[in-house]
Amino acid sequence: MEGRISFSSDYTKGAHPRLLERLQETNFEQIVGYGTDEYCKSAADKIKTACNKKDADVFFLVGGTQTNQTIIDMLLEPYEGVVAAQTGHVAAHEAGAIEFSGHKVLTLPSFDEVPNTENGKRAVYSDQVGKINASDLKKLIEDFYADDNHEHMVFPGAVYISHPTEYGTLYSKAELEEISGVCKEFKIPLFLDGARLGYGLMSKRTDVTLEDIANLVDVFYIGGTKVGALFGEAVVFPNGVPTKHPVPIIKQHGALLAKGWLLGLQFDTLFTDNLYMDISRNAIEMAELLREGLKEKGYQLYIDSPTNQQFITMEDDKLAELSKHVGYGFWEKADDSHTVIRLATDWATTREDIETLMKYL
Amino acid sequence: MEGRISFSSDYTKGAHPRLLERLQETNFEQIVGYGTDEYCKSAADKIKTACNKKDADVFFLVGGTQTNQTIIDMLLEPYEGVVAAQTGHVAAHEAGAIEFSGHKVLTLPSFDEVPNTENGKRAVYSDQVGKINASDLKKLIEDFYADDNHEHMVFPGAVYISHPTEYGTLYSKAELEEISGVCKEFKIPLFLDGARLGYGLMSKRTDVTLEDIANLVDVFYIGGTKVGALFGEAVVFPNGVPTKHPVPIIKQHGALLAKGWLLGLQFDTLFTDNLYMDISRNAIEMAELLREGLKEKGYQLYIDSPTNQQFITMEDDKLAELSKHVGYGFWEKADDSHTVIRLATDWATTREDIETLMKYL
Amino acid sequence: MEGRISFSSDYTKGAHPRLLERLQETNFEQIVGYGTDEYCKSAADKIKTACNKKDADVFFLVGGTQTNQTIIDMLLEPYEGVVAAQTGHVAAHEAGAIEFSGHKVLTLPSFDEVPNTENGKRAVYSDQVGKINASDLKKLIEDFYADDNHEHMVFPGAVYISHPTEYGTLYSKAELEEISGVCKEFKIPLFLDGARLGYGLMSKRTDVTLEDIANLVDVFYIGGTKVGALFGEAVVFPNGVPTKHPVPIIKQHGALLAKGWLLGLQFDTLFTDNLYMDISRNAIEMAELLREGLKEKGYQLYIDSPTNQQFITMEDDKLAELSKHVGYGFWEKADDSHTVIRLATDWATTREDIETLMKYL
Amino acid sequence: MEGRISFSSDYTKGAHPRLLERLQETNFEQIVGYGTDEYCKSAADKIKTACNKKDADVFFLVGGTQTNQTIIDMLLEPYEGVVAAQTGHVAAHEAGAIEFSGHKVLTLPSFDEVPNTENGKRAVYSDQVGKINASDLKKLIEDFYADDNHEHMVFPGAVYISHPTEYGTLYSKAELEEISGVCKEFKIPLFLDGARLGYGLMSKRTDVTLEDIANLVDVFYIGGTKVGALFGEAVVFPNGVPTKHPVPIIKQHGALLAKGWLLGLQFDTLFTDNLYMDISRNAIEMAELLREGLKEKGYQLYIDSPTNQQFITMEDDKLAELSKHVGYGFWEKADDSHTVIRLATDWATTREDIETLMKYL
Repeated sequence: MEGRISFSSDYTKGAHPRLLERLQETNFEQIVGYGTDEYCKSAADKIKTACNKKDADVFFLVGGTQTNQTIIDMLLEPYEGVVAAQTGHVAAHEAGAIEFSGHKVLTLPSFDEVPNTENGKRAVYSDQVGKINASDLKKLIEDFYADDNHEHMVFPGAVYISHPTEYGTLYSKAELEEISGVCKEFKIPLFLDGARLGYGLMSKRTDVTLEDIANLVDVFYIGGTKVGALFGEAVVFPNGVPTKHPVPIIKQHGALLAKGWLLGLQFDTLFTDNLYMDISRNAIEMAELLREGLKEKGYQLYIDSPTNQQFITMEDDKLAELSKHVGYGFWEKADDSHTVIRLATDWATTREDIETLMKYL
Repeated sequence: MEGRISFSSDYTKGAHPRLLERLQETNFEQIVGYGTDEYCKSAADKIKTACNKKDADVFFLVGGTQTNQTIIDMLLEPYEGVVAAQTGHVAAHEAGAIEFSGHKVLTLPSFDEVPNTENGKRAVYSDQVGKINASDLKKLIEDFYADDNHEHMVFPGAVYISHPTEYGTLYSKAELEEISGVCKEFKIPLFLDGARLGYGLMSKRTDVTLEDIANLVDVFYIGGTKVGALFGEAVVFPNGVPTKHPVPIIKQHGALLAKGWLLGLQFDTLFTDNLYMDISRNAIEMAELLREGLKEKGYQLYIDSPTNQQFITMEDDKLAELSKHVGYGFWEKADDSHTVIRLATDWATTREDIETLMKYL
Repeated sequence: MEGRISFSSDYTKGAHPRLLERLQETNFEQIVGYGTDEYCKSAADKIKTACNKKDADVFFLVGGTQTNQTIIDMLLEPYEGVVAAQTGHVAAHEAGAIEFSGHKVLTLPSFDEVPNTENGKRAVYSDQVGKINASDLKKLIEDFYADDNHEHMVFPGAVYISHPTEYGTLYSKAELEEISGVCKEFKIPLFLDGARLGYGLMSKRTDVTLEDIANLVDVFYIGGTKVGALFGEAVVFPNGVPTKHPVPIIKQHGALLAKGWLLGLQFDTLFTDNLYMDISRNAIEMAELLREGLKEKGYQLYIDSPTNQQFITMEDDKLAELSKHVGYGFWEKADDSHTVIRLATDWATTREDIETLMKYL
Repeated sequence: MEGRISFSSDYTKGAHPRLLERLQETNFEQIVGYGTDEYCKSAADKIKTACNKKDADVFFLVGGTQTNQTIIDMLLEPYEGVVAAQTGHVAAHEAGAIEFSGHKVLTLPSFDEVPNTENGKRAVYSDQVGKINASDLKKLIEDFYADDNHEHMVFPGAVYISHPTEYGTLYSKAELEEISGVCKEFKIPLFLDGARLGYGLMSKRTDVTLEDIANLVDVFYIGGTKVGALFGEAVVFPNGVPTKHPVPIIKQHGALLAKGWLLGLQFDTLFTDNLYMDISRNAIEMAELLREGLKEKGYQLYIDSPTNQQFITMEDDKLAELSKHVGYGFWEKADDSHTVIRLATDWATTREDIETLMKYL
C-alpha cells in the first residue's frame, strides 16, 4: 500500500522535516546514552515550562503500548487494577500487555446508546463515545469499597483515560475536573493517554489546555509517534514520579532506549517555536475541511469527532471503488451493505490531499 | 559529555549517513504499520539470503534488552529458565527483565582464573572471558536431570550466549559447534545475542561466519543499535519461530513499533551492497590500530579482545589527565591506584580519532 | 460467629467424620511426599473409574483460587486469555489471581434481565444467572477472528465455566454440549470449575452426570473443600494434562503440598462407597426442604436455584431479627428496605438445622 | 515406601495427636472463613506473646514455597531481588517460584571450602554450610551501589536466610546480629525462613531464642508442616506487615485457605503448654542419640549438624543393604563407591526408632 495517498491512520509517514534535519546535524556528536543527555534535559525543561510545572518529572519512551504498560505498572500496587473504558486502548488493543505485567483492567462502559426509532439504525451520544464519566467511575469505586468481599477482588488503583479517545472524542474541562475530583477523593492516580494529545489541544471544540491537563492528572504523555515524530512519547508526572527508581522499572519493561537522545532531540524540536502545536493545528484544519466536504456530499458522520479522526458510514459498492485510489481505516460493518470507516488527517496532510480524497468520494 | 571525542561505547553516534538519507527519501511515503510493510519484507529477504536460510523467520525489534526478553519468553516453557554466563547481559545488566517475565537465569561461570605468581596480579585466560563452554553446560544439564528433585528445580530450557561477548571475546567455530551439539543432544534451543554481531564477523581473529551462526543456533539477532543504525535489532529464527503468534507476544512485551518500517528500512540499507559488513570492518581496523598503539606505548591489555572493545589497565593519575580530553568507559578498579577502562571503536571511528586518542594516552 | 447455627456458606465446618478417622488411622504411617504416594494413586484410580476415563490425569490441589490459577496457566499460551462469565469466580472474586499469572479474563455477560412491569423490581431469567451460553461464546470467538486487528488483542485461549455456578445454577446437558461443541470447533479447551460439583451432580433438577462432564470438558475439578473435605480439589484432565511437566508448574504457583497424601487420603475416602455423592445428596435434600419452607412462608426466591445455595429477598427489619440467631450470607441490597441473602446447606446440614432456621424465619 | 520405618525427612507423618483431637472436637462448630476466626486470633496472640512483640502482625499460610513466594513479593519493589545463599531453598528448590512472581534471586556463596590434603577428599567448614555471612552480604550491597551501572541491575531489596538451613546448620546470635546490622544499615528487610524453626530453637548448640529472632529480623515464619502440624506456617512480621492490604496479595498467590481456622487451630494448640518447643526438643534429643550412635559405629559425619538432620557418608554396598529396611534421604554421590545420605528425626521419632536404625547401620 506504500506510496499511495492514504487516510488510514496518523502514523503512516516519517517525521516533520525539522526533526530529520536535527538528526542529521547531530549525527556525529557523541552523546551519552539512556536518556541522561542534554537534549533530553532540554526537552524536559521545555515541556515543564509548557505545562507550567517546574517540579514535574519528564522522561521519554518509544511507543504507546510500552508507555501505557510501564506507567500503569509504576502506579499500581500488585493487588490493584486500572480502571478504563471498555473501548480504551489498554483494555482492548494491547494484546494483554497490562495483564502480562500482572494487573487487571477494570472496565467501565464507554458510551450511551439509544434506539433510533427513525430508521432503526444504531445511534449513540457521539460525544461520549470512548469516554468514561465521573459518576460511573465513582459508582465503581464506591461499590467496590461497599462490598464486604472487596479484599477478594481487584482494587481500583488508577484510572486510565485517553484524550483524544480512540474514537477521536474529547473530554471537556468540566468532565476532566469531575473525573479528577473523584480520583482525588479516593486517592487514586489519574493517567491520561495523550498518544494524540496535540490533536486534542488544537481542536476547535475544546476548552482543555496543556496546563489544565498538568493540573488535573497525575501522569500523562504527549504523543510523538502520531504527531510529527518518527517515534516517541513524552511522559509527564506533573507532581513527580511515584517511585524512587524509575530507570530499572523502565529497563525491565524493555523500554530504555540506548540512544535516548533520539527521543530528547525530537521532543526538544517539537517544543521549540511552538512546532508541536502548529503541526497539530494543521491536522485539525484539514479534518475540519474534510468534515465539511463529507457533509456537503451527504455522508452520515458515524461520530461527530472534534479531532483528526473522522468516521463515516459508506455503501460497500462505493467503498470498493474508493479503495482503488485511497487508503482508509476499516472500522466495523454497519450492516450488510454498509461499512464504517475512519479517515485520519495528520501533521502533514495538505489541502491537496483533501481535494484528492474529495474527488474520489 | 556531548561533542567531545569519546571511546566510551559503540552507541554514542546516530546512524550511517546512508540510513539517514533513506529516511529522508521515504519520509512522506505512506507506509503500513507494525512491520507488515515492503521495507521489512525486503530487509528480511536480504538477511535470509545472507544467512542462506530461505525458510527463516526474521523480524525487527528496537533494542537489546527488549529483544533478549521477548525471544527468551518465546523459547521457554513457564517452568524453564535460560542458561547464561554469569557475566551475560541477561544475567547481569538488564535490571531483571528476564525475571520480570517470569524466568530464572541459570548461570555458569564465565572465565577461568589462575594465580599469576609473577606479580601477584590477577590473570585470566583472556579468550574465555564472558563465554560459557560446552562441558560446563553439559554438566549443568546432566546434573539437573540426575537430581532426584529436579521437578522442584528450574529446568534448563534455553541457552543464551553473546557473540561478541560483553568483554569483546569471540567463540571459535569449534566452540560454537560443541555448544550447539550439547543443545541438540538435550533438545534445548540455543540463542545467540548478536548486539555487536558485525564486529564479531569482521574480526581478524574469527573463523565464524554468518552462515555458520545460522546453521548452529536456533535464534540470533543482528545488532543494529551498535552497528550503524539509529536503533534496531534483526531477529532471525533460521528454522522458523517456535510460536504460532509472535505478534501478540511482541506486542505484550511493549516491543511492537508502530512505524515498523523504520526498522525495515534501516536493515534493508545495511544489507545492501555489504554495508553492514563494511562498516563493521572499519571498527575492527580502528580497534587493531588502537591495540597496536596501546602495545607500543606499553599499556597492559586487560583482555586481549579480537573485536571493537579494548580493555586496558591505567594508573589513576594518568586516567584523570586523559579524562579531560577523551571519553572512556569505566570498567572496574584494578587496585588502589589502577583502573580498568574500556575503549570502544565503532562503524564511524576514523584514523584521526585514533591518532587524537593516542596523543592523549 | 463461631458455634452458632449458620447457613452463611458451605465451608463453615471441618470434614466428614470418616475422613477424620482415616487421618487418625494413618497418622503415624510414614508416607512419601508431594502427591507421589499410594493414597493419591488410589484416589486417582477411583476418580478415573467414576469418570470412566482410564487415561485421565488426576492430581490434587489445596483450594479453589489456587486451582483455577494453576489450571488456567497450564491451558493458555502467553498471548491468550480465558473466557468467563462476568460473574465467574475467576473474573470477580480471586483478587486478580489470573492476571497475576499474566492472563486476561475475557468476560461474557452472565444473565439476561428484563423489566418486571408488575412491581417495578428487577427480574432475571433465573436459570441463566451465573452462566454463559454457547451463542454468546461463539460470537465472541468469531468476532475476535473477524477483527483485522486481532493480533493486537487477547486471544480467547480457554473457556471457564462453573457448575454449579456462584449463584447455584446449573447447565443442562444440552447447554454443556453446545458450549463444548463451540470449544471443539475452535480448538479451545473447556475448563469446568466444580468447587461445588457434588451439589450439582445430586441436584433433583439436573441431567448432567460425572461421566458427561468427563466427556464434554478438557479439564475440571471435583471440589472437596465445600463438599466434606477439610480442604482439597481433585483436578481431572480426562484426556491427559497438556504439559510435559505439571509438577514444576504446580510448585511455582506455591500449590504443591508437602504432605500430599492428606489430599489423596481424603479423596480416596470420599470416592469409597459412594460417600461423595451421598453427602452431596444430603445437602440437596436439605436445600429442597428449605426451599419448600421458604415458599410456604411466602418468601420471594431471588434465584430459583436447583442446588445447595438458596437466595431470598428479605425485609431489613426481619433480617436484623434473624441475624441474632442465625448466620446467613449477605448477597446484595435489593432496595432501601430489602436485602438479598444466601442460605447454603452442606454435606452435614440436618433436618433439625432446617427446622431451627424455619423457626426464626 | 509407606508403613516402613523411615528417616528420609521430617514431613513423613501426620500431626501431633493433640492437634488431631482439636480438629475432632471443633469439627462441627461453624467457623468463619479466610483466617478471620477466633482460633487464628488466639494463635496469633500466643505467638506474639512468645515473641514478646505485641504489635506484630501474624498470619497463617499452608506451605513453605508458598510462604517464601508470598512474603518475598510483599517485601520487594518490582525492580528488586532477594539475596540468598546459592543453596537457599528459594534459590535452588522452588521451581522458580520467586522468578514466577517477577523477582531475581541474587545468590551468595554458601560455604567455604578448603582442599583436604590428607586424603584428597572434599572438606568444608561444616558449620558454615548453607549459610551466608555478613561480610559477603555487605560486599554484595556495596559493590552494587558502587557500580555506575547499578540502575541497569537488580537492586538487593531483601535478604533471605533459613534457620536451620537446608543442611541443618544454625546461625549463632552474633552472626544473626551482624547480618541484621548490615540489613539495617542499608534499610533492606531481613527474612528468616523457619520451616524447621523449632528444631533450631531446641538445638543443644544454639544461643538464639525466639525473642532474638523477633528482634533481629523483619519477617520470619514458624514452620508447622515439619514440626508437628498437618500443614501450616505461621508468618510473623514483628514490626507490622509492610503493605496496607496483605489479604488480596495472599489471595492472588493462591494462598488464602478457605477454612483458615484449620491453620489457627493447629498453631493455637502448638503454642499451648509449650507443645511446639517440647516436640521440637524430642527431635533434637533423638538426633543427638543418632549422632552418638553414628560416631560410635565409626561413620564419618558429612556435616556436623546441631539440629534434626544428620548427614553421613556411606559405602554404596552397605547403603543397598540398609535400604531394604530403612528409608533415608539421598543427598549426593561422594565418590564412585560412596554416597552422602540424610537421616532426619522429627517431633514423633522414638528411642525405639533410633535403636531399630542402629541395628541396621
